[in-house]
Amino acid sequence: MTDEKHMLREQIHHWLQHNRDHGIELLQKLVQANSTQGNEQYAQTIVIEKLRKIGLKVEVWEPDGKFLATHPYFASPRKDFKGSPNVVGILKGTGEGRSIILNGHIDVVPEGDIAQWDHQPYSGKVIAGKLYGRGATDMKGGNVSLLLALSAIRALGIPLKGDVIFQSVIEEESGGAGTLAAILKGYKADAAIIPEPTNMKIFPKQQGSMWFRLTVKGRSAHGGTRYEGVCAIEKAMLVVEHIRELEKRRNERIHDPLYEKIPIPIPINIGKVVGGDWPSSVADLVKLEGRMGISPDETMNHAKMELETWIKELKNIDQWFNDFPVSIEWFGARWVPGAVDLSHEMIKTLSASYSEVIGKEPVIEASPWGTDGGLLTQAGSTPTIVFGPGVTEKAHFPNEYIELDKVFEAAEIIALTVVDWCGVER
Amino acid sequence: MTDEKHMLREQIHHWLQHNRDHGIELLQKLVQANSTQGNEQYAQTIVIEKLRKIGLKVEVWEPDGKFLATHPYFASPRKDFKGSPNVVGILKGTGEGRSIILNGHIDVVPEGDIAQWDHQPYSGKVIAGKLYGRGATDMKGGNVSLLLALSAIRALGIPLKGDVIFQSVIEEESGGAGTLAAILKGYKADAAIIPEPTNMKIFPKQQGSMWFRLTVKGRSAHGGTRYEGVCAIEKAMLVVEHIRELEKRRNERIHDPLYEKIPIPIPINIGKVVGGDWPSSVADLVKLEGRMGISPDETMNHAKMELETWIKELKNIDQWFNDFPVSIEWFGARWVPGAVDLSHEMIKTLSASYSEVIGKEPVIEASPWGTDGGLLTQAGSTPTIVFGPGVTEKAHFPNEYIELDKVFEAAEIIALTVVDWCGVER
Repeated sequence: MTDEKHMLREQIHHWLQHNRDHGIELLQKLVQANSTQGNEQYAQTIVIEKLRKIGLKVEVWEPDGKFLATHPYFASPRKDFKGSPNVVGILKGTGEGRSIILNGHIDVVPEGDIAQWDHQPYSGKVIAGKLYGRGATDMKGGNVSLLLALSAIRALGIPLKGDVIFQSVIEEESGGAGTLAAILKGYKADAAIIPEPTNMKIFPKQQGSMWFRLTVKGRSAHGGTRYEGVCAIEKAMLVVEHIRELEKRRNERIHDPLYEKIPIPIPINIGKVVGGDWPSSVADLVKLEGRMGISPDETMNHAKMELETWIKELKNIDQWFNDFPVSIEWFGARWVPGAVDLSHEMIKTLSASYSEVIGKEPVIEASPWGTDGGLLTQAGSTPTIVFGPGVTEKAHFPNEYIELDKVFEAAEIIALTVVDWCGVER
Repeated sequence: MTDEKHMLREQIHHWLQHNRDHGIELLQKLVQANSTQGNEQYAQTIVIEKLRKIGLKVEVWEPDGKFLATHPYFASPRKDFKGSPNVVGILKGTGEGRSIILNGHIDVVPEGDIAQWDHQPYSGKVIAGKLYGRGATDMKGGNVSLLLALSAIRALGIPLKGDVIFQSVIEEESGGAGTLAAILKGYKADAAIIPEPTNMKIFPKQQGSMWFRLTVKGRSAHGGTRYEGVCAIEKAMLVVEHIRELEKRRNERIHDPLYEKIPIPIPINIGKVVGGDWPSSVADLVKLEGRMGISPDETMNHAKMELETWIKELKNIDQWFNDFPVSIEWFGARWVPGAVDLSHEMIKTLSASYSEVIGKEPVIEASPWGTDGGLLTQAGSTPTIVFGPGVTEKAHFPNEYIELDKVFEAAEIIALTVVDWCGVER
């Protein structure tokens, strides 16, 4: 590291220390602004205000659902995004530097069973260095790291060569329509960082996923003469076993060292079952809903085809399925897998900044879940790394929190990375 | 058959022929009077009117739910029977004859999905000798056979020695609280006939049943790291397999020739499954609901204990069940099994009447479902035979119907049986 860079790092570090209370307050305000699907407006207003203060050029728009829906990667339960704006802030470089997208989603998943929360889900309460609330970890904490990094760079008057495009998007939790809208607006860059809750690990690869629904048929009868019917619950058990076998085969094909420590790199999860409607009748219908993990090295279409073909094979296991085939629907959310080559310059830059700030080598792993990074990489031609301060285990759970120290560490690492990546005009 | 008896039979036959339109009209009125649970009042009014016309002594009362609920055989989703009267009509004999209970339930199951009916469910329409509507087969047609038999006996002025106790009870479809109430009022007899829809077969034995709910636990996790959780759906599959094994063992013990042609004499039906709540989460809870068939030769308690003990054995199949045992609840409806010895005089009398009217031997089988006959036999000390004109396959189904000829054949057989059983005063 050059003396100049070292000096920059010191300046950023001190700026962040000095503005710690301000950062915490911003995160608190964002967590308190409940931004579940359809309710993102107020939280975005806070982001816009912040971007204007930093001095970025701001673009705000409500995505056009009808237009988005024509895109093969579109996935959302809704097509009307009225009142759910996307926000982009642009820091134009002086030229000839590499550009970067800093992307975070503003939407949060619902708080769930309120009885399981120790405090109000949108309290933003700080206790012993942790800030609590839905979205603290996933991923308003990460978004604040981005905003703090940009604030520091601007406040310190560091003239970047490359462009920085900050994106506060809607709809990540339902399949990425917000990021897709930004891509279709034409935003792209030489690399992107998404500060999803990775426990400060670096994820150059991420599993994609798709939801599916299987409909298994039976034939009704009175329970007292159940042998006259065909039990859809028993047939569904065969279907679950059959899918386990496919999961095994798909995972045996994976030799990526990033997945070395992961027991099942791309699981097929059967998360929901509903079947039959009366204890003393033979069930004539069972619906199974699940999530199919998609490897960073395959396309969604390949995975889809593989499950569809596999389900057809059921007829070789049981004649019943020949006459009454299991039907499959792809529904609900979907996340495109993403992969950035380990030799990519952004991984080197981010890793170096991490070591500089934390004092040790970063952990580099494959992500077991999807983010908007898949879309950015595959549909947006922007190689994307996922790295953020949140606590993976707390995402989507009651009593979600983030460690405040991590928010500032991530801000420092990201600021340094942006400076390094975009270059500084002398 | 004596000449006198033959003459009686001729008289009854002709009376029924002559009063055919009246019988059809009565059944039509009863079917049109929707008498689903809680709505039995109007249909019972029609029954009361008819009993008064025949000249029976009528008793009407709303069962006392609080009192009934203290009985070990009580099963009903409700404890308040306001507006749901039981009706009894008594034809006192001249003395020294055998008494008989003629029992039928007035309640019907709901019509279900109305789109599956070709006509209005409570139309009572007659098409090509069949009368359509909810309850036609189960069991207002059988009740009309009873009322016609009594009408004929009274109209023909046949002086019976033994008492006839006609019962139009509520709640059979939910576990028999109506018949239990009649038993606790003190009604008993030397034998009983229940004209449930047996396709004119004679059922001296009947399967009992109990509903149960099993709760199977898992541990939640994100579907992308499903190996960190424990899938309650997979655990529930082990439970279903385990129960299949118990069903096999319980049925291997049954050597009753009446069950010879029945593939599974006392099935355990798993009719309903609900588990998990999100496609991309590992399901942490599955509920299974089912119906356990109870042999006529065992007590409900024995069957209960056997399933409860068996479920505890799951811990030997999978350690998980040791830490998180499957819990079992007995809920909802319940039917006491019933058995009358094949050498019982009532079976002989009923069989002889059947042969006389139909001209061939009756089919004698064990019933795959429960009726109030179990309660009458076990709690009411009244040996009960189930025999009726309804179409077994149409009970509880859309487009339920009954063949009108069968209603009159059953009326004739029952009238002859009553005369034979109770004896005629010279």
